[in-house]
Amino acid sequence: MPSASLIKEFEKLIGKENVFTSEADRQSYAYDSAVLPPVTPGLVLRPTHAEHIGMLLRRCYDEGLPMTIRGAGTNLSGGTVPDSPRTVVIVTTALNRILEINEEDLYAVVEPGVVTAALAATAAGKNLFYPPDPGSQAVSTIGGNIAESSGGLRGLKYGVTKDYVMGLELYDTTGELVRTGSRTVKCVTGYNIAGLMSASEGTLGIITKAVLKLVPPPKASRAMTAMFSDMRKASEAVAGIIAAHVVPCTLEFLDHATINYVEDYTQIGLPRDAAAVLLIELDGHPAQVADDAAEVERVLQACGASGIVTAANVEEKKKIWEARRAALPALARNRPTIVLEDATVPRSKIPAMIEALEGIAKQFNVTMGTFGHAGDGNLHPCILCDRRDKAEFERVEQAVDAIFNAALELGGTLSGEHGIGTAKAKWLEKETSRGSIMFSRRLRKALDPKGLLNPTKLVGV
Amino acid sequence: MPSASLIKEFEKLIGKENVFTSEADRQSYAYDSAVLPPVTPGLVLRPTHAEHIGMLLRRCYDEGLPMTIRGAGTNLSGGTVPDSPRTVVIVTTALNRILEINEEDLYAVVEPGVVTAALAATAAGKNLFYPPDPGSQAVSTIGGNIAESSGGLRGLKYGVTKDYVMGLELYDTTGELVRTGSRTVKCVTGYNIAGLMSASEGTLGIITKAVLKLVPPPKASRAMTAMFSDMRKASEAVAGIIAAHVVPCTLEFLDHATINYVEDYTQIGLPRDAAAVLLIELDGHPAQVADDAAEVERVLQACGASGIVTAANVEEKKKIWEARRAALPALARNRPTIVLEDATVPRSKIPAMIEALEGIAKQFNVTMGTFGHAGDGNLHPCILCDRRDKAEFERVEQAVDAIFNAALELGGTLSGEHGIGTAKAKWLEKETSRGSIMFSRRLRKALDPKGLLNPTKLVGV
Repeated sequence: MPSASLIKEFEKLIGKENVFTSEADRQSYAYDSAVLPPVTPGLVLRPTHAEHIGMLLRRCYDEGLPMTIRGAGTNLSGGTVPDSPRTVVIVTTALNRILEINEEDLYAVVEPGVVTAALAATAAGKNLFYPPDPGSQAVSTIGGNIAESSGGLRGLKYGVTKDYVMGLELYDTTGELVRTGSRTVKCVTGYNIAGLMSASEGTLGIITKAVLKLVPPPKASRAMTAMFSDMRKASEAVAGIIAAHVVPCTLEFLDHATINYVEDYTQIGLPRDAAAVLLIELDGHPAQVADDAAEVERVLQACGASGIVTAANVEEKKKIWEARRAALPALARNRPTIVLEDATVPRSKIPAMIEALEGIAKQFNVTMGTFGHAGDGNLHPCILCDRRDKAEFERVEQAVDAIFNAALELGGTLSGEHGIGTAKAKWLEKETSRGSIMFSRRLRKALDPKGLLNPTKLVGV
Repeated sequence: MPSASLIKEFEKLIGKENVFTSEADRQSYAYDSAVLPPVTPGLVLRPTHAEHIGMLLRRCYDEGLPMTIRGAGTNLSGGTVPDSPRTVVIVTTALNRILEINEEDLYAVVEPGVVTAALAATAAGKNLFYPPDPGSQAVSTIGGNIAESSGGLRGLKYGVTKDYVMGLELYDTTGELVRTGSRTVKCVTGYNIAGLMSASEGTLGIITKAVLKLVPPPKASRAMTAMFSDMRKASEAVAGIIAAHVVPCTLEFLDHATINYVEDYTQIGLPRDAAAVLLIELDGHPAQVADDAAEVERVLQACGASGIVTAANVEEKKKIWEARRAALPALARNRPTIVLEDATVPRSKIPAMIEALEGIAKQFNVTMGTFGHAGDGNLHPCILCDRRDKAEFERVEQAVDAIFNAALELGGTLSGEHGIGTAKAKWLEKETSRGSIMFSRRLRKALDPKGLLNPTKLVGV
């Protein structure tokens, strides 16, 4: 734990009520949503004014204290697990003001602790649309979303968080304020630091303000489901929809195991004997939605979908997305531990990836349910297990390694949207190159010479 | 000039015919499209194999030779003007292969010297769409487009070059190959180096391969023109169209002076007495285009447009865009020098910016014609002058300073799409912050410790 005098200094700056020193308080920040051993930090700070961030950062830096920046802690790769018991966790949740929604120029200005869904709702209240919708949007923060470049269900059509970051303010390790980007649609003034910060996993500075792009909301939408007796046919339908030049807002799938877990959990009426279900949402101009829906139906039928249902009203549409949103909790409640993976392949390689996953589950004798963003090749194989069972968990780890190998062999990537953190760091070089790791480390060392910002994450220091 | 033995070495590696040593050859690479003094480089290299880039870079680096990477040299901020007579220019135009157009997964893989329009045409041949359309697309290269994150007419709806870069291969100053990004829609594997390279102006490495996103082409489009007797009314129409949540593919304007220069040049039939002309293109689903066109017409009428014409056929549409594309040559042919600026403001600030530009032209007694991408606030005020007339050119430089000041005061940016280069470097700190400059320089120094890649460009070394 930092010295008593430093703690006093912090208490004076941000208020005693925002400096957490007790064991119980600190333990709450020992873990995130990744399945990794917890590490209780030495101190937790919750600044309530953005301008204090620079001072906190500078003081910790001077004292040689490692820091982990944390929003809601929904990270799935260990990005917000403290690096050591000396770590100071800086929590951004009190910096939660939406500073501006600009209806003329279509942008929002927010503090990093704003909850994703709160921003989306506030924008919607002004008839504007903030598309990124990570699975944890109800609690995740914008700062965390940017640090991870979070994806979500709408990534296929609307892109991911980084595509909405127009400008940033951040404090670097010298405690200086860095401004980057603009409130204009186009800006090439200086390095694209906003781009670099996206997915930098809290290793380059602390974001204190973001200018985010908003768009006009779609005028219509339509949700559909289709059942398949063969997973390969479902995958072909996904490829067929894109090949027909229809870009759905959302194009998700649940495999046979997940369908049954969801049905156990929700009794929503999913077909228990189906090999796969596709859940599709189209949005845009009403006539386009109608045309796209007809085209999608044609592709689904050609691929042998055994039942195609279009939501007749808002209630039915809600039910479809409830089924999808229930996938993770429905899987998770069956065993003490769920390992949620993030293997991503070019979408034409989904059939091959699904086949590989089935083989891996068998080979390592693990229980797997897979769902995910089929439209962008971003699959979430989930392994149900008990991490206290050493023998089983060893098989799980081997299965995870095999999943990464399969994704890379198919021209895919280690992580579509969950990040590298500590969970996947050892795999990074295999996907990129030795040169990429060295380039990244040089870059990082220049911006964090002492290696104190989330030091064990991403490429290491 | 580099030593004879080094030149021999280069000739052996890339062929004698690709090593340019003569004064006449080198002079061709002394300038780009910015109005800046030419600097004849010491040597020009034109590699024909991407894998040679790493070796050339490494050898020049070892020898302490500054390098400027160059595509077609269409840069408007001096980014491809050599830094010194010792500079080695590495030309990428011979690396011009389109390696893949992937119709299933919607991406292209290209070498850096591929001409933008050639990529767009090849994609179009497979019924796919590469949207970025910088003004120089007929000759500009993809490598240069990425290094500048080039914009264009379609930026408003479709974004700029950086929005299409999915992955890159590049050589860094150690001669190592850096791989970043993926062929998947989502990828958060490691730092967003592809984002950092976008708009890095040739200061961080040499791009040798790019994976670029393609999209399905729009099914319909419609082009319209509208005349205004009052520039302010035209600006209000632009804001009104966006406020009505119509996002045109292209929303351009010509001011009174430009209209007349274009008419002198093309006799295309523009109204010589109009204060401004808006040129609008809508695209998307046919029904959406029809609805949007009706909405646009309503806004135009409400803002007092004096003549609204919709192109009845492809020929008429072509004529509209000919008028817009003619703006720059029509202005340029009137005086020996044209200074093409790039001030960009939030689009609601266009009326104020136009007023400021008129005041600046009067105050400094310079001839100015303005056109540009009204929809994204990206204006191109052009000053017609003769750089050999010292007194006049001094007034021009003062006017340019005043333009930057006005854009920044209105919450805008120094450069929407032309880059910083050497032309705007001194202004950078005013828009960003001292912290941003230092952050950028540290980053740059780490990746180019000797300061040899385009050293005087962007933030300096």
